[in-house]
Parts: sequence; C-alpha cells; structure tokens
Amino acid sequence: MDWDAGMDADMGSFKGHALPGTFFIIMGIWWTVKCILKYACKKHKRTSYLGSKALFQRIEVFEGLIIIGMAITGMIGEQFIPGGPHLALYNYKEGQWVELLNWHHFTMYFFFGLLGVANILCFIISSLPTSLTKLMLSNALFVEAFIMYNHTHGRDMLDIFVHQLLVLAIFVTGLIAFLELFIRTSITVELLRTSFIFLQGSWFWQIGFVLYPPSGGPAWDTMDHNNVMFLTICFCWHYALNIVVVGMIYAFVTWLVKSRLTRFCPSEVGLLKNAEREQESEEEM
Amino acid sequence: MDWDAGMDADMGSFKGHALPGTFFIIMGIWWTVKCILKYACKKHKRTSYLGSKALFQRIEVFEGLIIIGMAITGMIGEQFIPGGPHLALYNYKEGQWVELLNWHHFTMYFFFGLLGVANILCFIISSLPTSLTKLMLSNALFVEAFIMYNHTHGRDMLDIFVHQLLVLAIFVTGLIAFLELFIRTSITVELLRTSFIFLQGSWFWQIGFVLYPPSGGPAWDTMDHNNVMFLTICFCWHYALNIVVVGMIYAFVTWLVKSRLTRFCPSEVGLLKNAEREQESEEEM
Amino acid sequence: MDWDAGMDADMGSFKGHALPGTFFIIMGIWWTVKCILKYACKKHKRTSYLGSKALFQRIEVFEGLIIIGMAITGMIGEQFIPGGPHLALYNYKEGQWVELLNWHHFTMYFFFGLLGVANILCFIISSLPTSLTKLMLSNALFVEAFIMYNHTHGRDMLDIFVHQLLVLAIFVTGLIAFLELFIRTSITVELLRTSFIFLQGSWFWQIGFVLYPPSGGPAWDTMDHNNVMFLTICFCWHYALNIVVVGMIYAFVTWLVKSRLTRFCPSEVGLLKNAEREQESEEEM
Amino acid sequence: MDWDAGMDADMGSFKGHALPGTFFIIMGIWWTVKCILKYACKKHKRTSYLGSKALFQRIEVFEGLIIIGMAITGMIGEQFIPGGPHLALYNYKEGQWVELLNWHHFTMYFFFGLLGVANILCFIISSLPTSLTKLMLSNALFVEAFIMYNHTHGRDMLDIFVHQLLVLAIFVTGLIAFLELFIRTSITVELLRTSFIFLQGSWFWQIGFVLYPPSGGPAWDTMDHNNVMFLTICFCWHYALNIVVVGMIYAFVTWLVKSRLTRFCPSEVGLLKNAEREQESEEEM
Repeated sequence: MDWDAGMDADMGSFKGHALPGTFFIIMGIWWTVKCILKYACKKHKRTSYLGSKALFQRIEVFEGLIIIGMAITGMIGEQFIPGGPHLALYNYKEGQWVELLNWHHFTMYFFFGLLGVANILCFIISSLPTSLTKLMLSNALFVEAFIMYNHTHGRDMLDIFVHQLLVLAIFVTGLIAFLELFIRTSITVELLRTSFIFLQGSWFWQIGFVLYPPSGGPAWDTMDHNNVMFLTICFCWHYALNIVVVGMIYAFVTWLVKSRLTRFCPSEVGLLKNAEREQESEEEM
Repeated sequence: MDWDAGMDADMGSFKGHALPGTFFIIMGIWWTVKCILKYACKKHKRTSYLGSKALFQRIEVFEGLIIIGMAITGMIGEQFIPGGPHLALYNYKEGQWVELLNWHHFTMYFFFGLLGVANILCFIISSLPTSLTKLMLSNALFVEAFIMYNHTHGRDMLDIFVHQLLVLAIFVTGLIAFLELFIRTSITVELLRTSFIFLQGSWFWQIGFVLYPPSGGPAWDTMDHNNVMFLTICFCWHYALNIVVVGMIYAFVTWLVKSRLTRFCPSEVGLLKNAEREQESEEEM
Repeated sequence: MDWDAGMDADMGSFKGHALPGTFFIIMGIWWTVKCILKYACKKHKRTSYLGSKALFQRIEVFEGLIIIGMAITGMIGEQFIPGGPHLALYNYKEGQWVELLNWHHFTMYFFFGLLGVANILCFIISSLPTSLTKLMLSNALFVEAFIMYNHTHGRDMLDIFVHQLLVLAIFVTGLIAFLELFIRTSITVELLRTSFIFLQGSWFWQIGFVLYPPSGGPAWDTMDHNNVMFLTICFCWHYALNIVVVGMIYAFVTWLVKSRLTRFCPSEVGLLKNAEREQESEEEM
Repeated sequence: MDWDAGMDADMGSFKGHALPGTFFIIMGIWWTVKCILKYACKKHKRTSYLGSKALFQRIEVFEGLIIIGMAITGMIGEQFIPGGPHLALYNYKEGQWVELLNWHHFTMYFFFGLLGVANILCFIISSLPTSLTKLMLSNALFVEAFIMYNHTHGRDMLDIFVHQLLVLAIFVTGLIAFLELFIRTSITVELLRTSFIFLQGSWFWQIGFVLYPPSGGPAWDTMDHNNVMFLTICFCWHYALNIVVVGMIYAFVTWLVKSRLTRFCPSEVGLLKNAEREQESEEEM
C-alpha cells in the first residue's frame, strides 16, 4: 500500500496500517451501501432504473477494476519501496530470504487481485456461476488470515494479541462468505459480513495507534497485560461502532430509495405494496 | 448489576455472580415459556386471541424495553459502585487503566442493550428483517464469551476452569443462535437454546458458591484438581436439571393452553385436529 | 456397568472397559439394522406389516425401555460396587470428594437414561417433536465426550492418548446427531453415525486390551511413543472393520427384506418398482 | 507408492513424496475435468452421447478400478520395499513395532482403496445411495489427515510445519466433501474440492524439494524460522497456481464441448438455449 517511494512508510509504521485500514473501511461501507440498495430496490423493482440488473452488473465490473487497481498498486508498492525486496526472493550471497514480510503483504494483495479478476470474468462470461466471486472473496480472506497468523513470530505479547484479533475478524468474515456459498442467506447475514470487513478496517487503524502512536509518543507497553485487557473490550467497541454505522447507512439508503421513488411514481408504489410485503416476508424466512 | 452503591457488591463477590445468574435464569425461563406458547398456540391458531400475531409483537416490544432497562441499570451500576471507574477510562497521573474488569462488564451489558434496541426497532419499522434480533442475540452472546475468555488472566486454576465452562455454555448458545440465522429450525433447537441460557444463569450461581461461599466459610481450594473433577460433572448435573425444568414447563404450558382453549371452544379444536397434525409433522421435519 | 458386587471389576480393569464396549457394539449393530430395515421397508412400503409405522413405534418404546434398564443398572452398579461411593458425594471427615471417577460414570449413564426416557415420551405423547430423541442422543454423546475429556487428568501419555481417541469418536458421533437436527439427511449419514457408535464400542475393548491386558501380562509401556504411533493406525483399522461390518449388515438386511417380500407378494413389488425408484432418488439427493 | 524394490525409495526421500504428489495431481486434474465436463454437458444434454448418464457411470467404474489398482500397488510397495515391514507388525524378539511409518502409509492407501470399491459397488448395485462415494472420499481424506497429524512426532520444526500445512489441505478437502453430503452444492464447491486435491499433490512435491533436495544439495535449515515464513506464502502461491490451472481447464473443456457440439448439431443447441439458461441459473442459486 506504500507505493510512495519517497516516504519511508512500510507496514512497520502508522501509515502502513492506516492505509489498508482505510481501504477496508471504504470497501466495507461500499458493500454495505450496495447490499442495502439491492435489497431496497428489490422491493420497488419495476419502478425505476435503479433496480435494474444491468446497472448492478456494471457496478460489479467497476468494482472489479477498482479492486484490481488497488491490488496492483499495493503489490508494486510492497516491492519497490525503499527496503523492499525489488522482486528478489532469495539472496544467494548471504544465503537468506529477502524481506519476507513484504512478500507476505504482496501475496495478500495478489489474492484480492484475483477477487477483482473473478468479478470481471463473471460479467464478461455469462456461463460462469455467480458464486465464483463469493468463493474468491472467501479465498482472499482465508489466505489473509492464514498469512497474518504466521506473520508475527517472535514479537511481543501485545503485538501478537492485536494481530490475533485481526486474524479473528478476518477469519470470521471468510467463514461467513464461505457459508454463503452453501446456504441461501438473507440480507442480515450479508450485512454481518460487510460490517466485519468494516471492523477489519477500523482495527487496522487501532493497531497503528497502539504500536506506532502517530503523536510521536512512546508505543504502548507491549508486555503489560492490562493493555491486553483493554484491547479486548476496545475490539468490542469497534464492533459496536460498526453496527451503529451500518444501521445509520441502512436508514439513510432506505430513506433515499423510498423518497426518490415516491417522488416520481407514488401511486404505482402504493399499489405494489401488498404484493411486495408477502414476497419480502418469504425471503427473510 | 450492582447498582446499590451502599453495598460493596462487585463481581468479585457472591452477589456479583448471583445477580447476573438470576437475570439469565429469568430470561431462560421466560424465553422457554414464550417459545412453547408460540408452538402450542400455532396448533390452535384460529381459536383464540392468545395465538394472534399482534399479541406476540407487543410481547417482543415489552421484552425489548425490559432488556434495555436491565442493561442500562447494569451499565450505570458497574460505573458508579464504590470502586467503580466512574466513567474514567485512563488515569493519566498513574499511567494505568481504571478498573478494567468493570469496563468489561459494562461492555457486555451494552451489547445486551443493543439486543433490546433491535427488538424494539423490528417492531416499529416493519421493513426490517426479523432475523435481526436473532443476529443481535448471537452477537451479544459471542461478545460475552469473547470477553469472558480474556477475563480471567492470572487467576487460579479453579477460577479459570469455572469461567471456561461458563464460556463454553455462552459460546454454544451463541452458536445455536447463529445457526438459526442460516437454517430454518424446529422448536427442539429453540428450546435447546433457551435451556442453555438457563444453564448459564444457574452456572453463574454455582461460580458464586464456589469462589465466594455465602456461608462465610473458606473458598474452595483453587489448586486442588479434585475440585475440577467434581465441577465437570456438576456442570452436567446443572444441564440435566435444566432439561427437566424445561420439560416441566413444556408440560405445564401445553396443558394450560389446551385446557383453556377446550373450555371455551371444544368442538372447533376437535375439528381442526387432523389438519393441524399434518402441518405440524411438516414443521418438525 | 459393574453391578456384580462380588467381582472387583471397576472401570480401572479389563472388564470395566469391555462391558460398556459390548453395550455400544450392540447398540451400534442394532441401530444399523433398524436404519437399514426402515430404508429397505420404505421402498416396499405398501406390501407388508414390516414397513408399517406402528411396528417401528413399538420398537422405539422397547428400545427406550432397554436403554433405561441398562442405564439404571449401570448407575446402581457404579454406586454400590466395593470401592464405590455408595451415594456419598463428599466425605466431610476427610474433607475430600468420594470416588469422583465413579460419579463421572454415573453421570454418563444418567444422560443415556434421559435418552431412553425421551424415546418413550415421544411414543406416549404424540404432540412431542420427533427430533427430541435425536437431541437427547446428541446431548448424551456430548456430555460423555465432555466428561471423558476431563477424566484422565494426571495419567500417563498412552492412557491419555487412547482416551482422547475415544473422545474423538464420541464427539464426532454427537456432532453428526446434532447436524441431523438441522438438516434433513440421507441414509448414508445415519449409517455413518451408527458406525461411529460401533467404533466407540470396539475402541472401548481396545482400551481394555491396552491398559489391562486380560492375559495377565504386563500393560503396554505407557511412555513409549511407538505405542502411540501404532494405536493411531489401530484406530483407523477399527474404523475400517466397522465399515466392512456395516456393509455386510446392509447386504444381509436388504437381501432378507427382498427375499421375504418377494416370496409373499412378488407381483405387486414388481409393479411398484418404477414409482419407488424415482422417489428414492429424490430422497438420496 | 514405492513398489520398485530395486530402488531404495521410501517416504523418507524425494521420490517417496513425488510419487503420491503425482498421484494427487493427476486425480485433481482428472476430477476437475470430469466435473466441468458434467456441468457443460448438462447444459447441452439432449444433443450428444457425451452427456448421457451411461457414459458417466462407466467412467465411475473405470475410475474405481484405477484407484483400487493404485491403492493395492501402494500397499504392496510399502510392505515389500527393502526396509519395509514385510507384513510383520510386531517383532517379538526385540519387543518393538516393525516399521510403523510404512504401516501408516499402508493404512492410508487402504482407505483410498475402499473409495475405489465404493465407486464400483455403487455402479453394480443400483439400490446403493450415490452419496456413498462422497462419504468414502471424505473418510479417506479424514483418515489421511488424522494419520499425517500423528505422523511427525519428534521431528524438526520445519518438517512438522510442512506436514501441518499438508494436514490443513487434506482436512479442508475432507471437510468440503463432508459438507457436500449434507447440502446440495454447486459446481463452484466441487471445483474448490478438486483444486484442494490438486493443492495436496503439488504440496507433496514441495515437501520433497524442501526436505530432500533432488539436486543433492543440503536440505533446508529445519530450525530457521525464516524458512517457515517463506513456506507460509509458498503454500498460498501453490494455491494461486492451482486456481489458475483450474480456470484454464474450465476454459478449455467448456470451449471443447461447445465447439464439438455446435459442429454436429448447431441448430438444436440454439433452440435449447433459453430453456437451459433458466435451468442453469436455478442450479447455481
């Protein structure tokens, strides 16, 4: 994520955690909006262009392009920042691996890139099953969790703990995406997944604040168990905040769809209401 | 839960465990009754007001208000008992966190408060999916289990063991609620969930008796492994007791519904029987 | 299981493991036969008394009575064998628990007794959901696994290892029964469950042979890791044997049903074949 | 796998890992091809012999024979290579087990043999549920994971780590096959399973390269944690490669089916398109 070779920002810095954090917060909010929009439009489906399948397909492709762009930028950044491996994997002279942590990040970006590719392929080739993107999302998250889990060997207690919580958030997100492959789910589960993406993003920021305080002050005492006790509840507070934010987005998007639609075609919506309500209750079951 | 500032009752006391225990026992029994009532009324659905949807919705709102009330009382109590943090999180003078264990309990109450809010919101806004309350219940339980798990650092073996069993009971309850999000379930699974809520409550009491004997006698030897061996089966006995209590509630509620209904409208019930039996057998599949 | 007070057979002996082993082997075989019989009869359902619902209900009650009988015998045996607790739980004089391991076994038997009670209740009270017996089976197995897990504290490596494998077999059985609560399953899954009950039984025998060789020779070296390596594959061989036995029972029962039915009513069976085949293929899906 | 008694190739060698690796790579590719072929043929099902049920049944039997052949060869090889146990299990003279690691491999092969037997039985006896082969696949994989897990006692860190990753890959494959027993799945999940089989194969090769470099050079430093860090991402790269290969196979097979079918019967395919597309979208849901 640190492609600006002029700055000495690698993952071992505040910025190195804030940047992926921002990425996941944006993705989380965006997916939440998209998911609620789809749900709200389904209820009013014959009334506007908003609910059309074509629009959502175009959005998918656009999303895929952005994800690929971000992933490639991240991959290049990880390679060519000062202190990066510059595509060298093994230093035969010194007989040791070159900057493995950067290669770790590189690999994570690569799998998110595959997600973007799957997004676009599903649009171009209509015979591909749509569950493919869900599978690739699940893959990208599991790979991220797996690498993160093996990432913090030999560090201090607090450092390991905050990364373990990150792994927990990532793994749960992957698990939900994986379950969605098997079982038809409701909007509740989808919002749960997007809120966990969001949680991941905000927790990246928290890690940055804990390990590399941007105020320039000293880092937290990484061997003090009270910090672990605090970060346990801090993680829950982040989650509570995310739930509230998702709720606010839900209220806003639902209001927006309803107000825009009723302005243009109030009567038709009224007529459809009964039919919709039945259909809706079936879906939620 | 210890809002009476005059008593020195915090979680590190018998009362501090008995109060949440009582709360969960009441919730467990109440949910069991509600669940069986719904099931029994469904069989006789056209015969009385008891089975009407409107009644159950009002009950949900009432339940939500009570949960919110309990959660707020608990949160205020945890903050303002003598020795509580009084809303202070960090003591900058001494450079340490203020009463983190109280903040832990505060966070757990907060998530149960969110469950109450979801209960009420689902009533007010009919477009919200009904699975939301189930999700918030699952969230509240998982958060509780997560915090409990990180709660007992550095204590004695027995103390950790009884809390681990508590975490087990909470986690299983959360897992069942989570599975109910995905898969349509029968009354058996719902009763399983409520009986685990009940188990949690009675185990809170057990923890109180083990760590802070109300008789004033000495606490159990926390390093004796025989106590662990006993508490293993004691946990199972609690569970067996809960199963029996749930069974008795089932018998009582079913008898009540049947006797009240047959008194008022015996013939109609008789006519409906065949139709009901078929429907019922489908549901149980 | 050792109710014969004249023998000094407690669980810490060959007989103490062979008896529950025999119980589970019998249950495993019986459930396998019942499950295959049901499946085979369903295919020929209008042709004979064998496939009637009434017969299977009576079998359930009979099964329930036998399980209750076995459980009560086991519970009494554990209490009153020489060296048993004789219903005393705590010795106040010496200030220690009385024979906790016997109480462990007692608790396990009790939960299997509950399974038997559920079996009978489901027959008597037709309004009870049929999934109740499955839930109680799952409960009994999880409780057994939970107690076994906390059962072997402080013993030698090999002793712990063989009991861990037992816990694995029990836990998997419980998990399958639990999943059957949620998801409609095919005969394959049911046979998997019964074969694991069978595995549990044969592994009990193996434990007896390993820890208390009936030949009177010395026990196996409990600290030699090669024994662990061997018992790993020995567990798999037991499983392979069980699969073969279940397969043979399948072949025998299917042949029996077919030959008996075709003898009495060959033409009708022929006519039904096409209809059955379709139905059957749906079920297996 | 090492049946050539003339070579001193046991599992503790490069060849001993390359051979099973090759086996799993072939199986993975073959199952991928078969799965995509089935999917593609289903879309064009009335148009050619390729999509007929009879053909696929014959393929299953052929597959079963090959698997049995491989398993028997492997079992015999493990027994009779120089240094193998030659069917002796216990050396009474020296009082120790004979070549337990070979017996481990022998057991794994045996369970894959059972998979082959199930394949053939399902063809011969039409009354057997088709989910049987899936169950046996899941069994074979779980047994393999279980034995592998208990296989590397007392070895060096790196050796254990690479085998743990292997266990992870095997266990996930088994889990997916197990879930397929319960829930009707889409082609995405099936391809996920076959790609994990493929991953297992390529990881076997990687283990060979790490522990027994075929170049004759020294093995990797098994106590250097940097190697663990590298192999973490190397595992992910293998997985990424597998995804790409599966994607290429998908493209190739789909193209092949389409081009061959349209050459022979272009008009009919065109007519069927609409009906197929609907059906297809249902399946993917």
